[in-house]
Amino acid sequence: MKARIKITLKNGVLDPQGKAIHHAIDALGIPGVDDVRQGKYIEVALNETDETKAKAAVERMCRELLANMVIENYSYELVR
Amino acid sequence: MKARIKITLKNGVLDPQGKAIHHAIDALGIPGVDDVRQGKYIEVALNETDETKAKAAVERMCRELLANMVIENYSYELVR
Repeated sequence: MKARIKITLKNGVLDPQGKAIHHAIDALGIPGVDDVRQGKYIEVALNETDETKAKAAVERMCRELLANMVIENYSYELVR
Repeated sequence: MKARIKITLKNGVLDPQGKAIHHAIDALGIPGVDDVRQGKYIEVALNETDETKAKAAVERMCRELLANMVIENYSYELVR
């Protein structure tokens, strides 16, 4: 089972990295971009076949390690 | 329209950041993790309503700016 985890900044949290990317896109001359936000993407391969247990493990690693819950949100999907 | 872009390392490319996360997960005592790979996640808000044009813009920013095509892959989805 594989977990695809996205960590994103909460709304209102400043994102200088996203701003830098936005400037670089403008400098390339690509039009039509309103906003850019950068987050993290983490793929975790689990040797767990039980979906409930896999979910519990992923929740725990998101809350305790991967996401800073003060400024970040996480979301994930489990795929077989 | 919004583009959700994932940048991931190609298979075979060393991922020390992913390894560090793997070690930290083990240290937390969360069992059942085989492998961890870290990538980037970027959300781009586009003021383009034409899907073909939005796609072309996102392809260009992925190839020319966001992904290093030698060691990274990109994938994205467009949402309204």
